[in-house]
Amino acid sequence: MHVAIIGATGLVGSLVRTLLAERAFPLSRLTLAASARSVGQSLDYLGAPAPIVSVADALAARPELVFFAAGGAVSREWAPQFAAAGARVIDKSSVFRLDPNVPLVVPEINGPAIGNAPLIATPNCSTTQLVLVLAPLAREYGLKRLVISTYQAVSGTGAEALAQLQREQQGGGAGAVYPYPIHGNVLPQCDVFFDNGYTGEEMKLVHETRKILGLPHLAVTATAVRVPVAVGHSEAVNAEFERPFTLEAVRALLAAAPGVVVTDDPAARAYPMPLTAAGRDEVFVGRIRADEGQPNTLNLWVVGDNLRKGAATNALQIAEYLVRETAAVAAP
Amino acid sequence: MHVAIIGATGLVGSLVRTLLAERAFPLSRLTLAASARSVGQSLDYLGAPAPIVSVADALAARPELVFFAAGGAVSREWAPQFAAAGARVIDKSSVFRLDPNVPLVVPEINGPAIGNAPLIATPNCSTTQLVLVLAPLAREYGLKRLVISTYQAVSGTGAEALAQLQREQQGGGAGAVYPYPIHGNVLPQCDVFFDNGYTGEEMKLVHETRKILGLPHLAVTATAVRVPVAVGHSEAVNAEFERPFTLEAVRALLAAAPGVVVTDDPAARAYPMPLTAAGRDEVFVGRIRADEGQPNTLNLWVVGDNLRKGAATNALQIAEYLVRETAAVAAP
Repeated sequence: MHVAIIGATGLVGSLVRTLLAERAFPLSRLTLAASARSVGQSLDYLGAPAPIVSVADALAARPELVFFAAGGAVSREWAPQFAAAGARVIDKSSVFRLDPNVPLVVPEINGPAIGNAPLIATPNCSTTQLVLVLAPLAREYGLKRLVISTYQAVSGTGAEALAQLQREQQGGGAGAVYPYPIHGNVLPQCDVFFDNGYTGEEMKLVHETRKILGLPHLAVTATAVRVPVAVGHSEAVNAEFERPFTLEAVRALLAAAPGVVVTDDPAARAYPMPLTAAGRDEVFVGRIRADEGQPNTLNLWVVGDNLRKGAATNALQIAEYLVRETAAVAAP
Repeated sequence: MHVAIIGATGLVGSLVRTLLAERAFPLSRLTLAASARSVGQSLDYLGAPAPIVSVADALAARPELVFFAAGGAVSREWAPQFAAAGARVIDKSSVFRLDPNVPLVVPEINGPAIGNAPLIATPNCSTTQLVLVLAPLAREYGLKRLVISTYQAVSGTGAEALAQLQREQQGGGAGAVYPYPIHGNVLPQCDVFFDNGYTGEEMKLVHETRKILGLPHLAVTATAVRVPVAVGHSEAVNAEFERPFTLEAVRALLAAAPGVVVTDDPAARAYPMPLTAAGRDEVFVGRIRADEGQPNTLNLWVVGDNLRKGAATNALQIAEYLVRETAAVAAP
């Protein structure tokens, strides 16, 4: 299979390339595309240099499977062209996520939604780790309302933001990406503000969670906050259900959920943290406790690597799902 | 007035001493007490050295007003002895806060609760800034339920924790105070764990908020998280009320609340942050927005200096209230 990565030099694009090798993805050819300033350079793939070409040249090369990780503007312009040329496109940007014709997929939850769609969207990082944990509970107890507070890592904004954090940690000046210092500070702003006072990140949590869980009227409210952490988003989640649960049953459901690891032993000070979740493909959940002020309500603490399951890993898992389905269809 | 500070060398005790000078508190004598290892040393007060004595010697000196900022064990042992000797005691520890005979006071909210109590407790840092913002809204709209997620600064744990953060920021090893690194990480644990899975800090938010607001059955649930910030606690608050509000009326109420500053202009990227709240006596509130998933529900972002309004400033304000009341009673 001829695979292309658009945005191959970014944090997520680089990790997609790493994961293709790490997970032994069955590719026969790899095309790497990036912006003009990187064209002509090359990146390593399995010990050999792979040249970086323009997006137009990548399209002309007719790849069969294309990962888009270059930001909204590039996806908006180019993703439909690759799809029209017959490729299956897995898009990391937010551009097509809420399009009713585009499946928004976390394979463990709604892989079959992929169907024959030429373009498949992978969700926002903070949504992916959230729904992975909530889906089994929503199925069992009926999800009614969510209150989410996030503690989001700087790498979610990209390589330049990570450079700003590192520069500030070394005593350098602030600026460039965030309007204020992020080192030694927290910023209650992720993405731009909308007229309703919420940020883009907060509204993604509302709309994408509803779409993936298939609960279009779910009550969701969020506060998205950037913290001085390099990799690993954390989320404090208050989830109200229609039906009662026991904590034992909740723990058992989560322990059995694919891609989810329960880390929840207060006596041993065992709980999820970005420091231990970074570099892992699983999503970690702990601090599982009943809300003592409201029936059928649970508090959870969810941590995931925003570049892996929050982005590159989920995109790869969608690709692996496509390969499996294609193989299943092709089988005699 | 003869004033004593017990725990004069700690972060809060030091700031109480600074604030006594800064706010020109009418004292005639200052006695500073600390643990044995500091006795014999001295600290500056208004340009003159003030010797550090033992707690027993401070008691023997018969101060009229005593600030306790030395931790729970010292308060438990000594605060009642000072009170029995006729002093008014303002205690920063959690030991007496939920005692029905001890007023738990944020002067702007429940100053009159002080009455003739010999011992007055000042609340937990994260509770103080929270209730200061919620009290005017609770009075106007009837508070029904709170979901709180905190982003707490390391100085809330004390000087040794601050030293751990600074050591880690300079590349040194972790440990000493927190069980895991705090630099580049977030810890979903503030204080010890209870059997119900909640931490001490989370349950303080429940019980102290109820007591100060006079709402013994208020539904409150919290997730308390330590972030790599030196000074300044932040809180994402989802507050459900009995009655409807408009955002304009909420902003007007908060703008008029004593000690509260509204910083809420998304278009100008104006919102509260620990970086700008540190060193300030006021509590800052922003990101004021209606929860679109539930009626009569508000999201708020509250930031305060945990050492100032969260501890030393509130203690000083209680002392100033006592002085004013005494003067009023003594007036002809």
